[in-house]
Amino acid sequence: MRIEILCTGDEILTGKTVNTNYSHIAQRLGEAGLEVCWGTTVGDDRASLLMAFRQAAARADAVIVNGGLGPTVDDLSQEVAADAAGVSLVLNEPWLARMEAFYARRNRPMPPNNRKQAMLPEGAEFLDNPIGTACGFAVTIEGSRFYFTPGVPREMRRMLDEQVMPRLLAKAGLQGVTRLKRFHSFGIGESRADEMLAGIEALAPGGGVKLGFQAHYPELETKLAVRGADQDEIDRKLAPIEIEVRRRLGNFIVAEDGQTLEAVVLGALRARDGTLAVAETLTGGAIASRLLQVDGAEDVLRRGLVSRKPEELAAAVGTVARDFSPETALKMCLALRKQSNATHALAVLVTMEAGAEGADAGGVITIGLVSPEAEIVREARLVGGREWVRLGAAEMGLDCLRRHLHGLPTDERLDFERR
Amino acid sequence: MRIEILCTGDEILTGKTVNTNYSHIAQRLGEAGLEVCWGTTVGDDRASLLMAFRQAAARADAVIVNGGLGPTVDDLSQEVAADAAGVSLVLNEPWLARMEAFYARRNRPMPPNNRKQAMLPEGAEFLDNPIGTACGFAVTIEGSRFYFTPGVPREMRRMLDEQVMPRLLAKAGLQGVTRLKRFHSFGIGESRADEMLAGIEALAPGGGVKLGFQAHYPELETKLAVRGADQDEIDRKLAPIEIEVRRRLGNFIVAEDGQTLEAVVLGALRARDGTLAVAETLTGGAIASRLLQVDGAEDVLRRGLVSRKPEELAAAVGTVARDFSPETALKMCLALRKQSNATHALAVLVTMEAGAEGADAGGVITIGLVSPEAEIVREARLVGGREWVRLGAAEMGLDCLRRHLHGLPTDERLDFERR
Repeated sequence: MRIEILCTGDEILTGKTVNTNYSHIAQRLGEAGLEVCWGTTVGDDRASLLMAFRQAAARADAVIVNGGLGPTVDDLSQEVAADAAGVSLVLNEPWLARMEAFYARRNRPMPPNNRKQAMLPEGAEFLDNPIGTACGFAVTIEGSRFYFTPGVPREMRRMLDEQVMPRLLAKAGLQGVTRLKRFHSFGIGESRADEMLAGIEALAPGGGVKLGFQAHYPELETKLAVRGADQDEIDRKLAPIEIEVRRRLGNFIVAEDGQTLEAVVLGALRARDGTLAVAETLTGGAIASRLLQVDGAEDVLRRGLVSRKPEELAAAVGTVARDFSPETALKMCLALRKQSNATHALAVLVTMEAGAEGADAGGVITIGLVSPEAEIVREARLVGGREWVRLGAAEMGLDCLRRHLHGLPTDERLDFERR
Repeated sequence: MRIEILCTGDEILTGKTVNTNYSHIAQRLGEAGLEVCWGTTVGDDRASLLMAFRQAAARADAVIVNGGLGPTVDDLSQEVAADAAGVSLVLNEPWLARMEAFYARRNRPMPPNNRKQAMLPEGAEFLDNPIGTACGFAVTIEGSRFYFTPGVPREMRRMLDEQVMPRLLAKAGLQGVTRLKRFHSFGIGESRADEMLAGIEALAPGGGVKLGFQAHYPELETKLAVRGADQDEIDRKLAPIEIEVRRRLGNFIVAEDGQTLEAVVLGALRARDGTLAVAETLTGGAIASRLLQVDGAEDVLRRGLVSRKPEELAAAVGTVARDFSPETALKMCLALRKQSNATHALAVLVTMEAGAEGADAGGVITIGLVSPEAEIVREARLVGGREWVRLGAAEMGLDCLRRHLHGLPTDERLDFERR
């Protein structure tokens, strides 16, 4: 089945807004085993929209249209869809009533413009939007099925998952439901992970599992897209593969699905009534920043300190140092732990190598970690520009802490590491 | 003149990579007074590429093609371009020699695959790429002029500015050169800035200046796109408008062109041999993080501290406090200044309001600033979600410091502020 994505709107066409809706839709389709063959972007312009609809209808079996369902005059999707399908617009009474109720709950009168959002091409199939005033719809244009979705990202995402995907899967003759299982790892490159997981798809009884990767340095996302008749079948297909992925990627898995490394670390600290203090250099405070974005982090992270010079960072934690050596890292942790009364203290110190530039540059990362159970030092050299080393250092500090809290070795070699 | 952008590559088509090249190209064209009418995305697929080239040729006068110029078998742009133009591929000897020299400088033999990158459609116009091995070219397909550019963002950007834009402007009959003058402001919303700058374009002798805005909350970018016969003419056109923009937006302008607020602040501190220490809450350390990304920041920023609880933050700077009141903000600054020996101490404290959620939520930002000249407190209430308040608080802290360092009032009301 040939599928196209057609994005509308002047903001997207002129580049004022980066088109993340396109990439989200295309990724979701790919994960479900559907293929996107073509993407088109046009502005809020009647002639362009009509031509785009006709050309897409000629090329594709199914077209997902995004945007143009708003209440203003430049939102033209319903109108041009009716035109292209050769029907007129008719009022969808239930949707008008839903919108009126939506405004009534907020004690505001519905602006008259919004009535336009309930005008759908005659005979169109209604696609529900439970979180906004732009309902979606499906209509057939010159033999091709068009699915119209709102431009607001969270409304589009929900409608895509709940309304559009099931219809596309049915149209493609793909039975049942889909799920995406994700593993986040740190320290293994994409090509090595691919080798390590070779043949894993075959472990699913009856097949239907597709393996994929997405690198978001410093982490790698391993994705298992599964299709089955129902959720039980998906569970049965996934179970042996999940176990095997966890076995093969092992200690390098830092989180799964919607979890983050920082939330895992905070959870492990909280589980033992632990608290944390962090001293960082070169990372710009990225570790504290990541931790503090987790709900309830303030009960665990007592303080974060950041400075670029050894003398300054040492003074801030109440000690003296002149370098970023392993000894200094431990010394800083001990002083910081004492100063903050935290159970755990983490120091992430980075020394960029002088001379080389860009991708040939490198840095030495020295991590100190002191807890009630241990005093740990870990050193690693990463090759890459300043930003590469910075991101790697913050991840490595958090990962060291995760490994220690989970009783795993803290010195396993990373693929990025050069010794 | 009708212009299209045609992006190629499976990574883009499948959504694995977000298409920021498209938005960059579209924006640059718009800033130069050219209009993008259509965008197309296709994968590394011969039939799709050929159809996309033909359809674009039928719709547009000029087409910018991005991607597909690499050395691997799935890079098909030259081949399909030749096919569509009805010519064969011929070796571009000078480019082959350039590539060989490129590898020789790095003491590596040129991989044989790279020879493919010197094969251009017969009669194609060469577009130089001074920073990579993918040269660009221009060719006419069915009456429409096609400009082929590399997918690597920095190579594409340079080729667009140096090679493609001058040709497009000439083709559109737009004489001369262009420049984009930018002002970054904080505290004025887009619609108010639009009102404040009403009629400003008319001040350019002979016209040729176009005003635009781009909101990147918390900052607003005001853009003046100027076209002139040469740089001197552009200077003459811009001079009266620049003065007027600075007069009207006044103290709200935090930086111009490629400058950032944080670099401006560090520059002003350095100019008076000043040093800085920062204590933050809720921002996740965003102020220290922004400052530390500026080259040489380590000589000025002595330390950054972050914590979520008043007691913890106070303890970290060596004092005692139980709230985020204005008195506490001053007390923390005084303690921090003493503790760090910095000339300037800044505290940015945020109290999120309980109860409301999402866009109806709000927070009170309390800023303390102590310098050799003054002790300043500033309070503001922002309405919006946690992320909105967080970004606003970091910007407001930096802007307070900028205003103080430049001798400007620190209490001018912001558009975002609710009292």
